[in-house]
Amino acid sequence: MKKSMQWAATIAAVAFAVPAMAQFKNADESIKYRQSVFTVMGQHFSQIGAMANGRAPFDAQKVKADAALVLSLSQLPWVAFGAGTDLGNTKAKPEIWQEQAKFKAAGDKAMSELARLDAAAKTGNIDQIKAAFGAAGQSCKACHDVYRGK
Amino acid sequence: MKKSMQWAATIAAVAFAVPAMAQFKNADESIKYRQSVFTVMGQHFSQIGAMANGRAPFDAQKVKADAALVLSLSQLPWVAFGAGTDLGNTKAKPEIWQEQAKFKAAGDKAMSELARLDAAAKTGNIDQIKAAFGAAGQSCKACHDVYRGK
Repeated sequence: MKKSMQWAATIAAVAFAVPAMAQFKNADESIKYRQSVFTVMGQHFSQIGAMANGRAPFDAQKVKADAALVLSLSQLPWVAFGAGTDLGNTKAKPEIWQEQAKFKAAGDKAMSELARLDAAAKTGNIDQIKAAFGAAGQSCKACHDVYRGK
Repeated sequence: MKKSMQWAATIAAVAFAVPAMAQFKNADESIKYRQSVFTVMGQHFSQIGAMANGRAPFDAQKVKADAALVLSLSQLPWVAFGAGTDLGNTKAKPEIWQEQAKFKAAGDKAMSELARLDAAAKTGNIDQIKAAFGAAGQSCKACHDVYRGK
């Protein structure tokens, strides 16, 4: 399959997946949920990085499983940034609620880069994985830099 | 497809899925990871319960997405109960490390009940979903009662 076709297939799979949207009793539950999703995502994303950058042995099957999991998880946290979830035990900055369209665009960008990483992982080609991992990492960082406090 | 065949198909899918095993820098990272996985699982499991028990409108697609997500997540936390992760910010009881075979059996039981719940969710039949949800909830509780502190 050509690279462009693979990419289209991935987009289609993501677009047609029914997201398992969460619902929350209160702001604390929302905050804990989104933090938990990011913790699990971050752990598996870092593991891909360790393999892509030679700090851990490269295991194509593991990269594939990690990338698929990270992509699935990336759909979940956004619903937990509802109104009133700016206060509490959170590093989320007020800009998230002040610039909702920009925040959504940043999240969407990260999700598409993670879909590209998933597609790259499916090829098993370490150079493609490295490139896609770098771009995905940049998209995570871009959002964190603006919207996540210290 | 007959119910027994669906069940067999689900087991096969689970058995052949490559688990995205996590690796950790230290005990704190392990503990935070496993707690995060259980938080996300618990949220989506509760949502299935709310729909199964009439506290939220029944949405077959949502039950299906939630059950698939919960089943995927249920594979993840076990690797984070490694040696030395009994101390720290955790409610995990020492029995986990004293009775590893029993703890594993309890986890395996919960994972099979969640596979049954996933199979029931795929049928869209609320009675099957209710029954499977009840059994899965019992298997979660059985493990929590013995291995999770207050």
